[in-house]
Amino acid sequence: MAGEGSSHLPKSYGLLVFPTFQALDAFGPMDPVAETLDPVSTKPRDPSLNPLRSDFGQSIFPTHTFANAPPLDVLIIPGGYGTRADDLDPLYEFVRRTYPSLKYLITVCTGSWVAARAGILDGRRATSNKNAWAMTKEVGPKVNWVPYARWVVDGNIWTSSGVSAGMDATLAFVQEVYGEEQANTIARVMEYERHEDSHWDPFAKIYNLPEDVD
Amino acid sequence: MAGEGSSHLPKSYGLLVFPTFQALDAFGPMDPVAETLDPVSTKPRDPSLNPLRSDFGQSIFPTHTFANAPPLDVLIIPGGYGTRADDLDPLYEFVRRTYPSLKYLITVCTGSWVAARAGILDGRRATSNKNAWAMTKEVGPKVNWVPYARWVVDGNIWTSSGVSAGMDATLAFVQEVYGEEQANTIARVMEYERHEDSHWDPFAKIYNLPEDVD
Repeated sequence: MAGEGSSHLPKSYGLLVFPTFQALDAFGPMDPVAETLDPVSTKPRDPSLNPLRSDFGQSIFPTHTFANAPPLDVLIIPGGYGTRADDLDPLYEFVRRTYPSLKYLITVCTGSWVAARAGILDGRRATSNKNAWAMTKEVGPKVNWVPYARWVVDGNIWTSSGVSAGMDATLAFVQEVYGEEQANTIARVMEYERHEDSHWDPFAKIYNLPEDVD
Repeated sequence: MAGEGSSHLPKSYGLLVFPTFQALDAFGPMDPVAETLDPVSTKPRDPSLNPLRSDFGQSIFPTHTFANAPPLDVLIIPGGYGTRADDLDPLYEFVRRTYPSLKYLITVCTGSWVAARAGILDGRRATSNKNAWAMTKEVGPKVNWVPYARWVVDGNIWTSSGVSAGMDATLAFVQEVYGEEQANTIARVMEYERHEDSHWDPFAKIYNLPEDVD
């Protein structure tokens, strides 16, 4: 928690859970809340896995390990500060050996770093978080990174831009695979205003990224 | 999974997790994915807690029980089909006894039903999911439900509309409590385009809700 001058701020947040709670209801809000319990750094990169020194976290139960995962049609790779860790070789190895049998791979935010480090984005067009673009290029020097993109599709690999872009990318994926009506129905039920144009990207502009493939 | 004619559709989705993964990266996309594995019903209500017969779920570890929860400044109540269950009395009782010592209560989507059933919304202005408005009125007959609202603030209670509205409401909360710069920084880092007007609500129109307090 932040130090002096912030003693009036709320410190202890509770997230009330019960069977069949709505995941996005819980995690959408917890994201912004978690990121404000300490001063939000404007630094684009930080060596620590928890630069905001947040006390928040949600632990989920994995249902399978890398060793016993069943055959998958779709693999979704989230991002997060955890992608900066240096002990993720088993993760990269799992992605590398799983990819050939997938129908689709979807990455969100710096989840594309995991795919890049697994080597499966080499020579492909892809995108990532716009706040950490320099690191993105470093992580995947052989990838054709697209700076201005809410998401990018290259073959069966869907990569999306930072955090919330994953919702637009996944809805576009739903539209492609399950149809437009499904995608629009879901967006309506979620009360989510979709960005349907994969080129929509005001954030690339904010971070002064180049217009062309980088 | 849906029946005939959909055998070509991907069935087995994997969500790859690792320490310090980004919650919204994972749960934003998993939400739409979960809701499309079966045909999405346009029925506003369903007696079952899993009307879409989805195989998806994320289990999180609670850190506390209703009996041993520490004093809280903020309580966040997500919605979800689970709010339709009839065995939630301990949940309502917890909310009822916790509310007086909170600085703020935030509900997302049908999380407002939990607050309403706990009795703490009586006589207050509040909002909820727009797809289940008839049920909302039934659940909280003494609440001044506001149909056209992305979110509503009444005293220290922030209620938001369906699912993704929770992000706008929470960012507005962050702005109120932590300042505009914090809220905008978080939105930028999340690459999220905020709706900053609490009256913005195209979904109320889609569901033909009345213009005034209902």
